[in-house]
Amino acid sequence: MSTVSIKPLADRVLVEPAAAEEKTAFGIIIPDTAKEKPQKGTVVAVGAGKKDEPITVKVGDTVLYGKYSGTEITVEGKDYLIMRESDIFAIV
Amino acid sequence: MSTVSIKPLADRVLVEPAAAEEKTAFGIIIPDTAKEKPQKGTVVAVGAGKKDEPITVKVGDTVLYGKYSGTEITVEGKDYLIMRESDIFAIV
Amino acid sequence: MSTVSIKPLADRVLVEPAAAEEKTAFGIIIPDTAKEKPQKGTVVAVGAGKKDEPITVKVGDTVLYGKYSGTEITVEGKDYLIMRESDIFAIV
Amino acid sequence: MSTVSIKPLADRVLVEPAAAEEKTAFGIIIPDTAKEKPQKGTVVAVGAGKKDEPITVKVGDTVLYGKYSGTEITVEGKDYLIMRESDIFAIV
Amino acid sequence: MSTVSIKPLADRVLVEPAAAEEKTAFGIIIPDTAKEKPQKGTVVAVGAGKKDEPITVKVGDTVLYGKYSGTEITVEGKDYLIMRESDIFAIV
Amino acid sequence: MSTVSIKPLADRVLVEPAAAEEKTAFGIIIPDTAKEKPQKGTVVAVGAGKKDEPITVKVGDTVLYGKYSGTEITVEGKDYLIMRESDIFAIV
Amino acid sequence: MSTVSIKPLADRVLVEPAAAEEKTAFGIIIPDTAKEKPQKGTVVAVGAGKKDEPITVKVGDTVLYGKYSGTEITVEGKDYLIMRESDIFAIV
Repeated sequence: MSTVSIKPLADRVLVEPAAAEEKTAFGIIIPDTAKEKPQKGTVVAVGAGKKDEPITVKVGDTVLYGKYSGTEITVEGKDYLIMRESDIFAIV
Repeated sequence: MSTVSIKPLADRVLVEPAAAEEKTAFGIIIPDTAKEKPQKGTVVAVGAGKKDEPITVKVGDTVLYGKYSGTEITVEGKDYLIMRESDIFAIV
Repeated sequence: MSTVSIKPLADRVLVEPAAAEEKTAFGIIIPDTAKEKPQKGTVVAVGAGKKDEPITVKVGDTVLYGKYSGTEITVEGKDYLIMRESDIFAIV
Repeated sequence: MSTVSIKPLADRVLVEPAAAEEKTAFGIIIPDTAKEKPQKGTVVAVGAGKKDEPITVKVGDTVLYGKYSGTEITVEGKDYLIMRESDIFAIV
Repeated sequence: MSTVSIKPLADRVLVEPAAAEEKTAFGIIIPDTAKEKPQKGTVVAVGAGKKDEPITVKVGDTVLYGKYSGTEITVEGKDYLIMRESDIFAIV
Repeated sequence: MSTVSIKPLADRVLVEPAAAEEKTAFGIIIPDTAKEKPQKGTVVAVGAGKKDEPITVKVGDTVLYGKYSGTEITVEGKDYLIMRESDIFAIV
Repeated sequence: MSTVSIKPLADRVLVEPAAAEEKTAFGIIIPDTAKEKPQKGTVVAVGAGKKDEPITVKVGDTVLYGKYSGTEITVEGKDYLIMRESDIFAIV
């Protein structure tokens, strides 16, 4: 897991996408149709949440998210995705 | 029913789709137009619910849901659907 | 009226559509343009309602609903419609 | 005014459309472009209203409504419209 | 100003449009692009307002409104517009 | 700054657009792509605000607003724009 | 960082975009597809926030925002973007 000096705003979360086609300790395989773009990643930074809606995921969580979720951003040469927490389906 | 180590977020539910064309103890037959893609499944994991909206379905419930509901996800070689609880029509 | 072991979720209602072209005791005739698909039926199961919005219709009520309301579902060889209560216009 | 045994749900209202081209005691003439389909009618049944939004119109009120408002329904051989109260512009 | 026996519902207002191209005491000239259809008129009837949103305009107010606001209605041979108060821009 | 006898309703504001291409005391130049239609103007009248949302701008404020904001209106031979306060970006 | 005499309204923020292709102390490189239009900038003025939603970013913060966020505005010959705070993804 990387550490970055970015502070997402409100309900946003910074995610480091897992390498495509990898197989985790939990044995999750990315379905064929999604191989080009991983849908799994690690949370590296979270926002402060919105009024009455605290953030649920924590830094270090491995999360599943929609194929087209988030905006790509490059920090120190690495690619990240910044997305709203509601774009995250589950913690694995 | 499978057991999985996935924790859906908020109002999301992980469902293991029933095999197509099966006939349950309740005698429910999937209508012809839906044979290719079952609309019935078993809840295998549920989220913590949203503020003031607790999750109603429980792990083990057999549920009916829309033909195009949810996002496909593969865990340990098995296919699941992750959907919002509001995509579920009824418990059978 | 049929009895079924289906429990609709939240504000959903299970309706057994009346046979097309029938004439009820109240003399209601389905308009010509709707003959292929009846817009009248009997409530056979209701959900628990939503927060602050209890269900108004009861099992056994004959209801009128929009021609394209609800999702078709087959239980023990009979066709039903599962719809939101807001899709129901009136009790007859 | 007709009497019918229909109970509209929530904020719905059952209206008996006035005959096209008629001239009321108030001298209201349906504009030319609307002659085929009257926009005036009499309320014959009202729903119980919604939470915090009681129904304003009463059975017997002559009301004006949009040309494309409501859903047609035939009861005992007569045509009615069932619409939401918000589709009604004014009481005349 | 005309008087009419119409009672608009909720946040609706009945407006008698000013004759096209007229010049008021305030010297307001309808802009060229709107000459065919005046955007100025006199309030002749107002609804009771909605919950927590009382009606601001009064009968007799000269108001400005959008070119395509409201629905035309003919009462005793005169043309009126029935619109929501939110369609009114200003009192002149 | 002009004075006008118009009273905008609710959250609406009457703005006198600045002449195109002008340079203010603050040195603000309208960007090239907007030269034909100024995006800067002076507030000449404000509404009473909406429930819980008082109007922030005051008569006399120089404001910046979107190129397509508001509706044109001519009063005593001068052109104004009437817009919602939310169409105003900033006070300069 | 520039200082400007502009006061954004409500939840709006004035941002001075960073020069394209620059590399900050934090080593953030704008991704290739965005080189023409930087997505990073410095907050130079903030609004007073909306009811129950105070502004989170402060003048001087370096922020990341969407490629198409905000409206361009030129003040004293320099280009700025005025955007809603919700268009800002993160503080770096």
